[in-house]
Amino acid sequence: MAKTVERPRMNAQPALTSMAPLNPPERLLMGPGPSNPDPRVLAAMSRSLVGHLDPFFVAMMDQTMDGLRQIFQTQNHHTLPISGTGSSGLETIMLNLLEPGDSAIVANVGHFGQRLAELARRAGADVRTIEAPPGEIVDPADVDKMLTERPAKLVAFVHVETTTGACQPIAPMVEVAKRHDALVAMDCVTSFGGMPIEIDALGVDAAGSCTQKCLGAPPGLGPITIGPRAMAAARARNAPAHTWYLDLALLFQYWGEDGSKKRAFHHTAPISSIYGIYEAIRIILEEGLETRYARHRTAHEALVAGLDRLGLSLFTPTANRCPTINVIRAPEGVDEAKIRSRLLDMGVEMGGGLGALAGKVWRVGVMGYNAQVSRVDRFVDALDEALRAEGWRA
Amino acid sequence: MAKTVERPRMNAQPALTSMAPLNPPERLLMGPGPSNPDPRVLAAMSRSLVGHLDPFFVAMMDQTMDGLRQIFQTQNHHTLPISGTGSSGLETIMLNLLEPGDSAIVANVGHFGQRLAELARRAGADVRTIEAPPGEIVDPADVDKMLTERPAKLVAFVHVETTTGACQPIAPMVEVAKRHDALVAMDCVTSFGGMPIEIDALGVDAAGSCTQKCLGAPPGLGPITIGPRAMAAARARNAPAHTWYLDLALLFQYWGEDGSKKRAFHHTAPISSIYGIYEAIRIILEEGLETRYARHRTAHEALVAGLDRLGLSLFTPTANRCPTINVIRAPEGVDEAKIRSRLLDMGVEMGGGLGALAGKVWRVGVMGYNAQVSRVDRFVDALDEALRAEGWRA
Repeated sequence: MAKTVERPRMNAQPALTSMAPLNPPERLLMGPGPSNPDPRVLAAMSRSLVGHLDPFFVAMMDQTMDGLRQIFQTQNHHTLPISGTGSSGLETIMLNLLEPGDSAIVANVGHFGQRLAELARRAGADVRTIEAPPGEIVDPADVDKMLTERPAKLVAFVHVETTTGACQPIAPMVEVAKRHDALVAMDCVTSFGGMPIEIDALGVDAAGSCTQKCLGAPPGLGPITIGPRAMAAARARNAPAHTWYLDLALLFQYWGEDGSKKRAFHHTAPISSIYGIYEAIRIILEEGLETRYARHRTAHEALVAGLDRLGLSLFTPTANRCPTINVIRAPEGVDEAKIRSRLLDMGVEMGGGLGALAGKVWRVGVMGYNAQVSRVDRFVDALDEALRAEGWRA
Repeated sequence: MAKTVERPRMNAQPALTSMAPLNPPERLLMGPGPSNPDPRVLAAMSRSLVGHLDPFFVAMMDQTMDGLRQIFQTQNHHTLPISGTGSSGLETIMLNLLEPGDSAIVANVGHFGQRLAELARRAGADVRTIEAPPGEIVDPADVDKMLTERPAKLVAFVHVETTTGACQPIAPMVEVAKRHDALVAMDCVTSFGGMPIEIDALGVDAAGSCTQKCLGAPPGLGPITIGPRAMAAARARNAPAHTWYLDLALLFQYWGEDGSKKRAFHHTAPISSIYGIYEAIRIILEEGLETRYARHRTAHEALVAGLDRLGLSLFTPTANRCPTINVIRAPEGVDEAKIRSRLLDMGVEMGGGLGALAGKVWRVGVMGYNAQVSRVDRFVDALDEALRAEGWRA
């Protein structure tokens, strides 16, 4: 990729004198994300830059917040894209809502449940987790029991666990948490923009997602929404959050508090990425949320039918499945990593298993721009070819 | 910018049904940043996406680290672009190097010195600051005195204070800190890529910058370098850092520890932004560091000569000036905000003063792609026109 030559230098480091022209391969990104962004979004990201306090940009920030509220189905003023990837949005929630001495309960049914628990621990909270076997979800009655034993400030869960494909229904988790007066935080990284997320109707206090899955943009921003109860908890902290970059109070000095026109510099917003999410939201509003969710379901059904033709089946129990991430049992006698490698040679990416499911499953995303039957069919054909080449199918 | 219509909805929120096409105005961005990126960088950011563990991308990560090492003039393995803006890179340094109970000394001669101090406080450190009047720098003898009174784990300073234009020479600050066995962290946000930053030769333990100034890319990443002494301090912490997203140990599980080919998923890298910084670094290596620094000096001299023709002068004392950020005295009897607003109407952005200098100065960046005499001349002509229109110049 680059030419490194040795030449005498003060610090004796081999000097990198040139780098190869950027020429990324074309990929059909059917893994758990990033998915292919809508080409309109990529085009938007290369538009000419403006300043982070330019009136044009400030108006665009307002529009971006409005658009995110539509997709979150919320009136929460405190809705914005955090200037980091999806993980940074979830960390923002945890670092602001929790502080040392607080208690949190985290539903942990896979890698991203573990991440939520670790984010809460890093915020200084005492964290209790509830596990379930891969593919299963947490029984809200167990959360109830745990809260009855000892209250918690926050209950956190993953809506769609990307590693197992299991979808945790939102309403029952919220209901049990509210009964015990706990806040509810939700990771909706793999559902936001591809499945209904009714923040206000269901009463979720804080939720965070990413841009590179169902939203149809490249990775780089962490859209979050924070409700009034959660904001009140953040404001009632004993000490400032152990972060300056992700401090909600400081962030909204720049993004604007409700009803205020005042914008104070905090950090320089990632302008080009905001162009991207603006265009992605615009595309979603053009399409309409219900049409978009239906498109995800249709593409998912096309995938399941295609896998069935290939003799493959989904790992996740039917009751827990969702359209956006499809976890497939890797067939016995097949080197699953070799199949993925063959696919990549054909320009198609799919994901392997993580944690307990490593080597046992494939993960296929049907997300955003890629949630199209034509793209799913292209994927199934490629998988078919790879399996045949490995001698698994005649 | 968008059409909002009222229609009946479950949550009674006015539905945003459409957003205007993205059509950002063309700006000559001569403020303190963002500056205009090289057009090649914007084009790179819209190239087709690959996965964050794609072999193509992993090779590009290595190259990006190598390139950053060249610009930092370091052999530090732990050199990478943090997945957030420049502030997130500096926060990474503070949250990893400092923990509750630690002592830090921060040179604070403007807004960004204050930010460094606040970042250190958020990390839990006991922070002592040394101030100097706007435009002045900190006397290393005062740091020496403070360290003699009571040791500190870390001494932090801003190389080029963006709000006052003052450049703090690196070597004397490092010398005094080392004499007291303190680590040295440096904010080089406004110098990296436009002025020499010799990390290894000068012995700086940790440094952080941004992409939207002298590097010539849009905002969105925080390039940092962490030396062996700093990494040892981060590893010797009593408790894990109060961050998961910015934890150095976790980040290098993905970016790769020295000599290891192993790459474990941490967060999904902002692929398109990495494309951008890759191309920006490539442009810098093509140009050569010395040529680039000379270009910044030449453009700065053209600006000073141009301002002189207009009867304007720099605020910063001559001895403390640097090419990249130019703080100009707003002339008496001129509404400085009105001049900036007139300029923006002409498609030219310059910065106002921050903090103590608000309303008193303008800030003009000569950075990266904009460090060209032709672009500086265009700026001076526009400023001339704006001043004449406001009746200040005949």
